[in-house]
Amino acid sequence: MNLILLFNDDFIDENKVRLEGRRLKHILEVHRVATGDELRVGLAGGPIGKGCITFLNNTSLEMDVSLIHPPPFPLPLTLILALPRPKVLRRILLSVTAMGVKRIFLLNSYRVEKSFWQSPVLQPENLQKQLVLGLEQARDTVLPEVLLKPFFKPFAEDELPALIKDTLPLIAHPAAQKHCPRDVLQPVTLAIGPEGGFIPYEVDKLMSCGFHAVHLGERILNIEAAVPALIARLF
Amino acid sequence: MNLILLFNDDFIDENKVRLEGRRLKHILEVHRVATGDELRVGLAGGPIGKGCITFLNNTSLEMDVSLIHPPPFPLPLTLILALPRPKVLRRILLSVTAMGVKRIFLLNSYRVEKSFWQSPVLQPENLQKQLVLGLEQARDTVLPEVLLKPFFKPFAEDELPALIKDTLPLIAHPAAQKHCPRDVLQPVTLAIGPEGGFIPYEVDKLMSCGFHAVHLGERILNIEAAVPALIARLF
Repeated sequence: MNLILLFNDDFIDENKVRLEGRRLKHILEVHRVATGDELRVGLAGGPIGKGCITFLNNTSLEMDVSLIHPPPFPLPLTLILALPRPKVLRRILLSVTAMGVKRIFLLNSYRVEKSFWQSPVLQPENLQKQLVLGLEQARDTVLPEVLLKPFFKPFAEDELPALIKDTLPLIAHPAAQKHCPRDVLQPVTLAIGPEGGFIPYEVDKLMSCGFHAVHLGERILNIEAAVPALIARLF
Repeated sequence: MNLILLFNDDFIDENKVRLEGRRLKHILEVHRVATGDELRVGLAGGPIGKGCITFLNNTSLEMDVSLIHPPPFPLPLTLILALPRPKVLRRILLSVTAMGVKRIFLLNSYRVEKSFWQSPVLQPENLQKQLVLGLEQARDTVLPEVLLKPFFKPFAEDELPALIKDTLPLIAHPAAQKHCPRDVLQPVTLAIGPEGGFIPYEVDKLMSCGFHAVHLGERILNIEAAVPALIARLF
C-alpha cells in the first residue's frame, strides 16, 4: 500500500479522516507508524497528498489530510480481455490498474470456460477490491471501469466499431505477422485472447472491425506476463 | 503446454518417446488427441520439432519424434531478483522463463522476510517444475539457471563486478531520475528489489558496482507486473 486510498465516507470533518478495518490493519502492521507520522494518501477519483496522524489506537486512526497533487496520468488504453480464470483475473486486474489502465472489457470467447462467468470475483464489490489494491500499489486514485461482455458477437458487431474510433486497434496474436509496435503516441484498444487464443472466427471478426494482429515474438507468453509486457511495449 | 518438453529418459528408442504422468494427463485433458495426431515437442536443452502419436491409452503415450529446429533465442538478460514471497516467486519464475531469461539470481535484501529462504519452492525439484512450465508455455527447451544468494554483501562485493562485465547494469528503482531505456541492443543485468524496494545501503552498494538506477514512471508496480514490463521495455 504505497498510498492510502480515501473515500468520501472516511471524512469526519473537512480535512479529517477516520480509518478502521483493512487499511488500519495494514498501516499498523506494515507502516508501523505513530501519532505525528505522515502517510501518502489520495481521495478516490481525486487528488493525492499527505495525511498526518493525529490519533491512533488498535481500532481506529485519524489523520489531517491535505490533498493538493493531481493523480498520475491514465494510460490511453482500452483493454479487451477474454475472461481469464478467476485466480488469474484477480491478479491481472490489480496489475493493469497499477499500470494505469482505466477501461477494461472482460469478453467472452469460444475458449473461455463457461464457469468463469459464475465466479464471485466478478461481483462488483470483489472487482472493486482488486482495483483498489492496484491503485494503492501505484499511488493512483482513479478507479478503472470494468465492463462485462458475456456475448462475443453482439459486442464485436454493435459496440466495437464505436469503441475503437480514433484509437489504434490491436489484437495480441502469436500467429501475427507484425511485431507489436513500441512507444505508440496515440490511444490504443488492445484485445487479448484466452489461453489457447481467440479462434479464427473471432480473429476474423476483430480484423473486420479494423483490428491489426500483432505478436510479441515467437514465444507464447502466459497471460499474466503477456498483459504487462504488451502494455510496457506500447507506452 | 504449447510444447511437450522431453527429457533423455523419455526415449525408448532413437526417435521414440514414451510419456506418462503429468504430461500425458495434460495431453489427454487439454489437447484431446488421438493416434496419428501431431504435437509440438522439444528436447530439454536441444532442438524442437514434432511428435506423431503412435500409441495412446490412459496410462501411456508413445510418439515418433523429429527434432529439427533450434529453440528460440535466449534473452541477453541476467535477472537479479530480491527473493519474493514464495507464491509470487513461483509465478515469476514461470513468466521470466517464458520470456526467455536464462540466468536468475535470487538475492537476499533487508526487506526480504527471512522465512522466504526456508520455502519449499526453493528446493531444486520445485524450482525446476516452474521452469519447465515456463518452457512449455513459450515453446522453448533451454532451462534457465536459478542461483540462490542468501547474503547480499558478499554477492555484491565479490561476484557482481565480474557478473556485470560487458553488460548494461540497471537497478529498477522507483525513485530513480532516469526512465528505463527501450530496445536495448546489448546484454543487460537487471536488479529488482523486494516489496518496499532495496534500502539505501543496498542501492548505494549496487551503484558503486556500476549499476544505473532507472524507473518505469511515477507508478510503483507490483513485482509481478514490474518484471515483465521491464523486460518488455528493454528488449
